[in-house]
Amino acid sequence: MIKTDILIIGAGPTGLFTVFEAGLLKLKCHLIDALPQPGGQCSEIYPKKPIYDIPGFPEILAGDLTKNLLEQGKQFQPGFTLGERAETIDKLEDGSFIVTTNKGTKHHAPVVAIAGGLGSFEPRKPLIENIAYYEDKGVDYFIKDPEIYRDKKVVISGGGDSALDWSIFLADVASEVTLIHRRIEFRGALDSVEKVQELKLLSKINLITPAEVTALHGNKKLDGLTVTKDSKKLLLETDYFIPLFGLSPKLGPIGNWGLEIEKNAIKVNTVDYQTNIPGIFAIGDVNTYEGKLKLILCGFHEATLMCQSAFKIVNPGKKHVLKYTTVSGINGFDGSRKEAPKAVVQAIN
Amino acid sequence: MIKTDILIIGAGPTGLFTVFEAGLLKLKCHLIDALPQPGGQCSEIYPKKPIYDIPGFPEILAGDLTKNLLEQGKQFQPGFTLGERAETIDKLEDGSFIVTTNKGTKHHAPVVAIAGGLGSFEPRKPLIENIAYYEDKGVDYFIKDPEIYRDKKVVISGGGDSALDWSIFLADVASEVTLIHRRIEFRGALDSVEKVQELKLLSKINLITPAEVTALHGNKKLDGLTVTKDSKKLLLETDYFIPLFGLSPKLGPIGNWGLEIEKNAIKVNTVDYQTNIPGIFAIGDVNTYEGKLKLILCGFHEATLMCQSAFKIVNPGKKHVLKYTTVSGINGFDGSRKEAPKAVVQAIN
Ligand SMILES: Cc1cc2nc3c(=O)[nH]c(=O)nc-3n(C[C@H](O)[C@H](O)[C@H](O)COP(=O)(O)OP(=O)(O)OC[C@H]3O[C@@H](n4cnc5c(N)ncnc54)[C@H](O)[C@@H]3O)c2cc1C
Ligand SMILES: Cc1cc2nc3c(=O)[nH]c(=O)nc-3n(C[C@H](O)[C@H](O)[C@H](O)COP(=O)(O)OP(=O)(O)OC[C@H]3O[C@@H](n4cnc5c(N)ncnc54)[C@H](O)[C@@H]3O)c2cc1C
Repeated sequence: MIKTDILIIGAGPTGLFTVFEAGLLKLKCHLIDALPQPGGQCSEIYPKKPIYDIPGFPEILAGDLTKNLLEQGKQFQPGFTLGERAETIDKLEDGSFIVTTNKGTKHHAPVVAIAGGLGSFEPRKPLIENIAYYEDKGVDYFIKDPEIYRDKKVVISGGGDSALDWSIFLADVASEVTLIHRRIEFRGALDSVEKVQELKLLSKINLITPAEVTALHGNKKLDGLTVTKDSKKLLLETDYFIPLFGLSPKLGPIGNWGLEIEKNAIKVNTVDYQTNIPGIFAIGDVNTYEGKLKLILCGFHEATLMCQSAFKIVNPGKKHVLKYTTVSGINGFDGSRKEAPKAVVQAIN
Repeated sequence: MIKTDILIIGAGPTGLFTVFEAGLLKLKCHLIDALPQPGGQCSEIYPKKPIYDIPGFPEILAGDLTKNLLEQGKQFQPGFTLGERAETIDKLEDGSFIVTTNKGTKHHAPVVAIAGGLGSFEPRKPLIENIAYYEDKGVDYFIKDPEIYRDKKVVISGGGDSALDWSIFLADVASEVTLIHRRIEFRGALDSVEKVQELKLLSKINLITPAEVTALHGNKKLDGLTVTKDSKKLLLETDYFIPLFGLSPKLGPIGNWGLEIEKNAIKVNTVDYQTNIPGIFAIGDVNTYEGKLKLILCGFHEATLMCQSAFKIVNPGKKHVLKYTTVSGINGFDGSRKEAPKAVVQAIN
């Protein structure tokens, strides 16, 4: 059982900034995300694109914003349960919660902050018979740790940025990379398309287009697949098949937690962004209230106000006085200390 | 008469970010501030100190935050009335407002956003008889344009960062700089104190401590002053006397505009941060509502939501659909265009 002060569901920008604001109040956080990496939409959908409306950044790449937020919170040592979806919630008699993931990992906390964005990112799966059987037995929809593909044969399918970028990356890791797409045109950043073209000419990527994977083979685990091209069937040996057809967010199980839902989002008040269930808050894209804007900077504000109420739940009866970070500095849970250089009082003679 | 879409009172971080968010909605802004420079508390009180809780910046100097916010909004060409205090407001029959400053400058806009922070920064003035007579005749409480002191004799008094830093700066500009403080100890950044010590030894700053300026002289304008040290009186010739005893914010005239006030702040709703007078909004440190935190990041959120309602007032009946900056890019009022590199659709052969 993982124990924490604030259990955050969703490691997008809102969840990540919550770690920092909670840390200022000496509250510990643990985050669950269905994706294998933190950053939410920013890292999954548009890591290399610039955002122009983060206050104080005339321009910042979504991937860099994620990196900065991780850096800003790191001295508060957040825990992560990645690649798992929060599935069920149980309220204990003392008012605290147990949240269990689809893989059975249990988390216990007095406060739950749902920062689930548009929902849990779920892979779009190709319609191939038996594909479910091969999941975790050679079929992967996400790349969690590229090292597991070292010196293996890998087939990637898809025609967008993820398929292009992972083909490029794995060309140096796997023993063989085959990229299959049902069109001959790819859609992605110009330099990615050009790089794949180059690796193809160098025979470092084996390209099969227009084609589709139509059957999977293997006994206990995947060992081959059928590719259909121009109605001809081709048998390929492979250790892994990685279909990268995009992810679509689904509010999913959270929709059945008894929370008030409106416009596919969770209704909250605007004092502390608490839901109709005391102790459960909803912040960022996942919530709704009059005037709501689904913007990153709004999630930051909501997370900050939410933490004030979380403090009262975790420390009943205690008072918290807001202090400026500039004036008080920051004490990390890792023993680190950040502080502004102090003024001196000194005679001049 | 200055005309604009949103008249912003206060050029602190909240007011500055409003320019950007308004610009996304094609609304023009003009800012009034009592200070000679934008940035509010950040540039007046702690420009060289790090802030740790601006989302996405593990650390940023308050002065750099101000610079970045100016940069972020600059393509929307905000107007500025600096060094003047918004004094009175009049509502016209069509619902628009005229705001007049203490120097008589008039501004006309359908929307007024008060981003006045803790209030208009007013200088603490030394108790010297007749000092009011010499204001703008040789006595300055702010340094608006250091060039006016070129090759002049300047007397600065005060013992903090402003007095130290301006003495250092003007040592290279003025023909003579005298620094007077009632103690021998100064309080400021270590390197400023050391630099003044060094310039004093080089005779580039004339230091008189512990001492006080006790009388001002001159007919039409200041031409000298009396310094009292160890109960002895000393006569000094000078062109300028700049007492830098700090600034204290005063809600001031805005307190009499008929707005609902609570805890020395303006009451607003949390949908669009509008006050009890339709068309007048209050954002940032100057407002109050249940759960309010006087933090920079909260002002950013409030400014953003406020602009949505301002849009409806300026463009009655028009609908605005929120677009992501990443997806739509930014069209500056100066003809500039910022946009993310587009994905290509391209065959790989
Ligand atoms: C192309 C594009 C461009 C954009 N441009 C801008 C822009 O310029 N400016 C701007 O402000 N915003 C922009 N946005 C929107 C911005 O990305 C979102 O507002 C922001 O990501 C919301 O952050 P969040 O942390 O609330 O949620 P998200 O980033 O959506 O993160 C939520 C996370 O929660 C996880 N999750 C949800 N439910 C569960 C569950 N049950 N179990 C486990 N994990 C779960 C999801 O997997 C996801 O990783 C853009 C969005 C897109 C798609
Ligand atoms: C030492 C110190 C450290 C701080 N540290 C932090 C921190 O770490 N994190 C954080 O989030 N916040 C911090 N703050 C608070 C932060 O600076 C404020 O929240 C922020 O400046 C508020 O911005 P604002 O734009 O609302 O108002 P302000 O910055 O106060 O700006 C308001 C402006 O309006 C002008 N004004 C007011 N009335 C009038 C009028 N009638 N006419 C003309 N002009 C007028 C004023 O002159 C002023 O320039 C700190 C503050 C101080 C003093």
